[in-house]
Amino acid sequence: MSLVRLVEYADASPEVRAVYDDIMATRGTDWINNFWKALANDPATLQRLWDSVKQVMAPGALDPLTKEMIYIAVSATNNCEYCSYSHTASARAKGLSDAMLMELMAVVGLANETNRLANGLRFPVDARFKP
Amino acid sequence: MSLVRLVEYADASPEVRAVYDDIMATRGTDWINNFWKALANDPATLQRLWDSVKQVMAPGALDPLTKEMIYIAVSATNNCEYCSYSHTASARAKGLSDAMLMELMAVVGLANETNRLANGLRFPVDARFKP
Amino acid sequence: MSLVRLVEYADASPEVRAVYDDIMATRGTDWINNFWKALANDPATLQRLWDSVKQVMAPGALDPLTKEMIYIAVSATNNCEYCSYSHTASARAKGLSDAMLMELMAVVGLANETNRLANGLRFPVDARFKP
Amino acid sequence: MSLVRLVEYADASPEVRAVYDDIMATRGTDWINNFWKALANDPATLQRLWDSVKQVMAPGALDPLTKEMIYIAVSATNNCEYCSYSHTASARAKGLSDAMLMELMAVVGLANETNRLANGLRFPVDARFKP
Amino acid sequence: MSLVRLVEYADASPEVRAVYDDIMATRGTDWINNFWKALANDPATLQRLWDSVKQVMAPGALDPLTKEMIYIAVSATNNCEYCSYSHTASARAKGLSDAMLMELMAVVGLANETNRLANGLRFPVDARFKP
Amino acid sequence: MSLVRLVEYADASPEVRAVYDDIMATRGTDWINNFWKALANDPATLQRLWDSVKQVMAPGALDPLTKEMIYIAVSATNNCEYCSYSHTASARAKGLSDAMLMELMAVVGLANETNRLANGLRFPVDARFKP
Repeated sequence: MSLVRLVEYADASPEVRAVYDDIMATRGTDWINNFWKALANDPATLQRLWDSVKQVMAPGALDPLTKEMIYIAVSATNNCEYCSYSHTASARAKGLSDAMLMELMAVVGLANETNRLANGLRFPVDARFKP
Repeated sequence: MSLVRLVEYADASPEVRAVYDDIMATRGTDWINNFWKALANDPATLQRLWDSVKQVMAPGALDPLTKEMIYIAVSATNNCEYCSYSHTASARAKGLSDAMLMELMAVVGLANETNRLANGLRFPVDARFKP
Repeated sequence: MSLVRLVEYADASPEVRAVYDDIMATRGTDWINNFWKALANDPATLQRLWDSVKQVMAPGALDPLTKEMIYIAVSATNNCEYCSYSHTASARAKGLSDAMLMELMAVVGLANETNRLANGLRFPVDARFKP
Repeated sequence: MSLVRLVEYADASPEVRAVYDDIMATRGTDWINNFWKALANDPATLQRLWDSVKQVMAPGALDPLTKEMIYIAVSATNNCEYCSYSHTASARAKGLSDAMLMELMAVVGLANETNRLANGLRFPVDARFKP
Repeated sequence: MSLVRLVEYADASPEVRAVYDDIMATRGTDWINNFWKALANDPATLQRLWDSVKQVMAPGALDPLTKEMIYIAVSATNNCEYCSYSHTASARAKGLSDAMLMELMAVVGLANETNRLANGLRFPVDARFKP
Repeated sequence: MSLVRLVEYADASPEVRAVYDDIMATRGTDWINNFWKALANDPATLQRLWDSVKQVMAPGALDPLTKEMIYIAVSATNNCEYCSYSHTASARAKGLSDAMLMELMAVVGLANETNRLANGLRFPVDARFKP
């Protein structure tokens, strides 16, 4: 069904295995999800995206659960089935409750609604909102 | 420039003024932004959306600043100019720092990137991600 | 500001002028809007799109005002500034009132909201909805 | 498969049952579709969205079938599978014919095409289109 | 599952069969894919879209494989499952390698990321980029 | 107007200046565009995105002009004003002619149209398109 082959660990080059090993070590898991197996068709892209995910999703000014919720908000807005499942699973593992998920989705829904009222009626941005 | 008239307080019906008064009282401000002035062309929609915003953005399982960040994430993904300015202003007032905004946008950017890799390559959702 | 030259009638080839003439005759106007002036850089595209607009927007199973409202709904969802202005103007000329525009935008906003609740929570389509 | 539990009538709180009862009474049906069963995880959101749907989709300046067609136009543009099935079913029940659906989709398709030509070529909005 | 009937060759009107015959002759194939069978519910739309595809996808200033890659880029960005499968198949038939597909998707992903950084942070367009 | 400060070279930290220097050296220019000046508020993001752009946009299985055209296709689809201007300028510098731009936009427009016909009518993917 996938438009590219999924590269299993057993079939992977040493370069790809090194990234897979780092993913599993960083996450404390013993398996690789399909996103990385698809990217492994291009080892440079695999390495770049994994480095990006590690950097962007690490704790910083925002905590990891907040970052997962933002990821879910974007994925719901774009309708990415894979990302909705994978990042909701990640967020659940980091403590996302049903109540938090429902509030998150309520904000996502409302923002999508008011975004279109603004884009369709095209009133100007209030001067006070401009930095 | 707006596609509908902006209803100023001085020209508003008592029904619209009641909503405007509640907006200003709830927010502790003395002005109404253009979003509400445009919606006031349909008082039922004005009332419904204000009730929704009050309910959805109130503190609950998620705190108000987290909700504003989710709003910004959706607005950036949809490219809503008005909403990006207004909700970044709201988030700033609730404590959003430059560092937080940059991390928020980094997650938004990365999610938009990986969403398309998943949607374009169409590998299946891993069984372990399904609840 | 435009990324391609806008082709004015005076500078247009006979092939482009013929399309411009048909646009003005069909619409009963004496001017050409910028959309067509930009497309005129590729006469085959100009001809194809004008033929498509004439065919698709003509009265049929749906009346022209309903078609303009659908156009506005899509343009607001996609945030097309040019199309929001031009098709709201066309709809106004065909009888769109403020009340109709506000109801149209209320449906557009709500649909954008519930679309994301469905895409984010990913519950299955009810069997009864499947034809 | 759903990312939240679907709340069946038999398991629902009195608060949720009251909304379910109103949905069935308003629609003249004896079943609840999955959209509401998912929202029922947050009774306040269930109530708010049902109130919104009742208000927005009621006959007004636009008739209910026109509103369903606008809903379909937005759902096709956003690629919401659930909403395309559910609102096409609603529209069929209100009289949508094959000919109307095909014309609706032709307008949706064309609007999505011309939206991108405008957004990609970035010619200015004609002054005559500005209210 | 389809929201309209799929019109098979055996059941098609002479008008529809003529388009089907031209599709098969132009492509050197002996079958019709579901996209056209769905459009055949409206023969005028079937004819118009087939004429458009023939004109737009023909070799010109850009070669056909480049055009297929642009089609894939748009389809991944919009999350069109049908179009991702059908145009990746077309591109494969025209010589798209795994390496090309992975690079194409890397550009699509990155563009989607930087698009949102620009839309969310809203810095002005540099004067030097304006034609 | 920008939602974050634009970091000028004169005010930049040595870490940021090193990236700016590499951008100018790689591109053979003597100025930095606003995209990077905004990202410089988070030097780690600046570094990561610049590394990504260098890697992804370099010649490989696809040539740089093809990559710029794919970037334009995505930016037009998402309606990113900044990216449309900046990547059309880049593509022009790499040889994009008016004829190529018009054909590119014709494909982008048509893909956006057919994407919605597929998403709205929801006919199944033909088995022959599945790898």
